[in-house]
Amino acid sequence: MTAHPQCPLCTDDGGELVWRGKSARVVLADEPQFPGFTRVIWAAHRAEMTDLVPAERAGLMALVWCVEQVQRDLLCPDKINLASLGNVVPHLHWHVIPRWRDDSHFPAPVWAGAERDGAARLTKSSPLLAVYRDALAARLDALVAG
Amino acid sequence: MTAHPQCPLCTDDGGELVWRGKSARVVLADEPQFPGFTRVIWAAHRAEMTDLVPAERAGLMALVWCVEQVQRDLLCPDKINLASLGNVVPHLHWHVIPRWRDDSHFPAPVWAGAERDGAARLTKSSPLLAVYRDALAARLDALVAG
Repeated sequence: MTAHPQCPLCTDDGGELVWRGKSARVVLADEPQFPGFTRVIWAAHRAEMTDLVPAERAGLMALVWCVEQVQRDLLCPDKINLASLGNVVPHLHWHVIPRWRDDSHFPAPVWAGAERDGAARLTKSSPLLAVYRDALAARLDALVAG
Repeated sequence: MTAHPQCPLCTDDGGELVWRGKSARVVLADEPQFPGFTRVIWAAHRAEMTDLVPAERAGLMALVWCVEQVQRDLLCPDKINLASLGNVVPHLHWHVIPRWRDDSHFPAPVWAGAERDGAARLTKSSPLLAVYRDALAARLDALVAG
């Protein structure tokens, strides 16, 4: 695997590590306005999904769907937002973001301007976030174990 | 398939139709600042990727990867942006957006504020966009024909 010394996702976990597999890792993003905001980060430095071979793509998306399902099961958001952008850091990473109708930006994307003050429903120390984190790690382990 | 009379993606194509398959369609978005902005829209009214069974998910993502590849091959963007949000219209649709370093918003997401005037490289009447549209329809046909 070729690491790029200037790429922050090659040199750092990019968030609070929840799970690490052979080809990707899952982290909790440091986004206090958006509790549960999770990123699935490809291990190797690749920019686009079509830089991966089909089996790699399917494996990465299986992790994304797993995160989405655990968010739905435990956090009960009003909507899930998925995105792979990478304009600033062109190293494949998926944003998996639980959204609530009363969050600061809803229905706008989290990258738009805020719509309201919208105090986040959960904080970093909420017990439910710890439950989510542990359940997510267990479900990802189970997924990879097949 | 259950159509929702209040859902704009159940009642309208949602853009200039490029291709229609049994379970999804592909349209050019009406976003003059972002030429080539393409949407892949699931035919049935479903909100989340995990509302689909795995084979449906894989089929939908195969269309997304096909759009991404044709954009890379013909439009040569600096980056591809992928997103499934649906906060306003909770009917599964993927945004596949070719981005250029000098576009109006780069490196911000298209949903953030503009960074500069950034005249779009292509306009609705650019010959390259017509080539992209026709090539995309042909590649999607070939993909589905297997």
